[in-house]
Amino acid sequence: MAYFKLPAGVHDVLPEACYNLDLVKEKLKDKFSRSGFDFIETAGLEYYDTYAKIKSPIEQTRLFKTTDYDGNLIVLRPDMTLACARIAATKLKAAARLCYFSRVYDFSARGNFLREAEQAGVEIFGESGAFADAFCVALAVDCLAATGLKNFIIDIGHVGFYKGLLEELGLDYEKSEELRAYVNAKDGVNTELFLKENVKDGRAAEAILALPSLFGGAEVLEEAKKLTANAGALSALSHLQKVYGYLKEMGYENCVSFDLGTVKSLSYYSGMVFTGLAGEVGAPVLSGGRYDKLALEFGKDLAAVGFAIGLDRLLTALERQGDFKSLPDTEVTVACAKGGEIVGYNAYRKWLSEGVSCRLLVGETAQEELSGAKGIKYLATAEGLKKC
Amino acid sequence: MAYFKLPAGVHDVLPEACYNLDLVKEKLKDKFSRSGFDFIETAGLEYYDTYAKIKSPIEQTRLFKTTDYDGNLIVLRPDMTLACARIAATKLKAAARLCYFSRVYDFSARGNFLREAEQAGVEIFGESGAFADAFCVALAVDCLAATGLKNFIIDIGHVGFYKGLLEELGLDYEKSEELRAYVNAKDGVNTELFLKENVKDGRAAEAILALPSLFGGAEVLEEAKKLTANAGALSALSHLQKVYGYLKEMGYENCVSFDLGTVKSLSYYSGMVFTGLAGEVGAPVLSGGRYDKLALEFGKDLAAVGFAIGLDRLLTALERQGDFKSLPDTEVTVACAKGGEIVGYNAYRKWLSEGVSCRLLVGETAQEELSGAKGIKYLATAEGLKKC
Repeated sequence: MAYFKLPAGVHDVLPEACYNLDLVKEKLKDKFSRSGFDFIETAGLEYYDTYAKIKSPIEQTRLFKTTDYDGNLIVLRPDMTLACARIAATKLKAAARLCYFSRVYDFSARGNFLREAEQAGVEIFGESGAFADAFCVALAVDCLAATGLKNFIIDIGHVGFYKGLLEELGLDYEKSEELRAYVNAKDGVNTELFLKENVKDGRAAEAILALPSLFGGAEVLEEAKKLTANAGALSALSHLQKVYGYLKEMGYENCVSFDLGTVKSLSYYSGMVFTGLAGEVGAPVLSGGRYDKLALEFGKDLAAVGFAIGLDRLLTALERQGDFKSLPDTEVTVACAKGGEIVGYNAYRKWLSEGVSCRLLVGETAQEELSGAKGIKYLATAEGLKKC
Repeated sequence: MAYFKLPAGVHDVLPEACYNLDLVKEKLKDKFSRSGFDFIETAGLEYYDTYAKIKSPIEQTRLFKTTDYDGNLIVLRPDMTLACARIAATKLKAAARLCYFSRVYDFSARGNFLREAEQAGVEIFGESGAFADAFCVALAVDCLAATGLKNFIIDIGHVGFYKGLLEELGLDYEKSEELRAYVNAKDGVNTELFLKENVKDGRAAEAILALPSLFGGAEVLEEAKKLTANAGALSALSHLQKVYGYLKEMGYENCVSFDLGTVKSLSYYSGMVFTGLAGEVGAPVLSGGRYDKLALEFGKDLAAVGFAIGLDRLLTALERQGDFKSLPDTEVTVACAKGGEIVGYNAYRKWLSEGVSCRLLVGETAQEELSGAKGIKYLATAEGLKKC
């Protein structure tokens, strides 16, 4: 007998889950299309060099690698933002608005994280400024709400704030990365030890230590201002205040919060970043931000902002909040007895032509199957159709 | 600047093509669902052993291979029929009817063949016999017709016919495979040379040589009967005659032809096989057949028949026959001048709430973009909305 287990971190989506997944996708598709986004599908295999040779590369450890028949190293699509930036810069007009349903692969994902994850996302190219950021966050809220998700919030941060604080520390690249890892893991002990050993400027070190507590309503932006005099960090904070101002005017102030302690591992983000958190799952259901320098890596200078929804996690959240639908029954089932095949087939065609879903059963187990079916049932014999 | 070419045999689907692809998928989805099929999505990564350890394995040269973090060899999903058989046998009730949209990977594909191909397909489990085969072929015709494809035919064969002829030759496995390669390539010269060197039975050799000419209407089934006395081969022919009888009664006789010379490279087929050929493309747009022994490899004895449509080729055929739609325009475009963002946003929300598609443009290039837009156009300023 064959070996039929699946590798860790990948899964089959069986009929009922797939039906619910499709319901969600249809709602998002409607939302994306109505707002003027165009769907694309990107190649599932790309050259390793596409990701290794840019300034903000995907970490090698995240890439599923294999070789091409000519010996070139190729990878499974690790990220849709990068793929969309590549396409927007090389194949489309400047102000593209792209959306997608796609799978992305992360070799390094362990535990509850998927190594093959299905995403729905949007990317807006050619628009910059605080309002474009607010618009993107508002769209994220609308999209999650459209799927039926309740009890979620969009948590907003800005890479410029942390970068500004970091600047003040005067660390080299390797030390910076070490610190980023501690901060990202919210590992207070090691953050503190690291700062004691490596940083002399007391105020800058204090600001870093305060990061994990800088979350909550818009008031944290004011609090954060007191922690630093760094121009970049302050500019990031006043940008977020503008974004929040717009979101308030647009009616979204109750859907967002701020978290300045988030330091995303994807290094292409250049400004505002945000994360969608659902009460029902312990990990983000949405992730996005601004990445104004990325398209330039592929040859075109394009401002850009976007987000991706993790559909697997979103489905888990919908299931936990009790919004999982059961698979709908076929309206009519027709079982063919031996000799009744053509009678059955004609009935099946007639139902279909009237817009009614109909399942035609044949073979030895057809009548047994029929007894288990729901909805309207017929038995087809050579003599004709009999309602059961 | 980054390296942004794609590996051979994979491609991005840009907005207009993606829109047409989606139109086709929506039509197929409707067709599949109405006939009582349930959608599934299968894992994109599977263990190499899943395919290597079954009796009719996928050739190693077709598999994209990589390793898991624990050192196990994993492959990119090479085939949906195998994945569906695995799932039907291990995760679902016996009489499952599954359908899917999925990508499959073939490392060995060269030239015009894709190494990443998108497929739509159905698999019917638990039904056997000539009528179930006829039903599957009829569904294939209906599905292709539903996509708008004109000028196509379903070409039907049977693996039992060739297997029967082969039996008469008394060759060992390696010799059989050598011959199969010649026959499959319709390489008459090498087929003849091979038969002269390896086969003494003149009648059996003659039947093999006649294979390439055994195509056309149902009359080839009668012709073929004269070529052999092998029980398996004759039984295959009379099965196909029964299938044809049903197809005639169902009204499909003009949509099918027969080709007994087709020897599919996928070795899991056990009975009838068929191929959808479109006038506009030089390669099959659909491929299917019966595979009654495959699910047993995964632990459950299930009769099965199904087919997959190659969506990339189908789209090419639709494009060539002039049925490619252009991307629909957004109905309303609203560009925001500086200070007019909230006015613009409120207009955008209003259009959306009325079910009208609306694109909101912001930033420096918004007004320039607006002049290029189609449909209804507005400029939003702090003073209000102005129709352009």
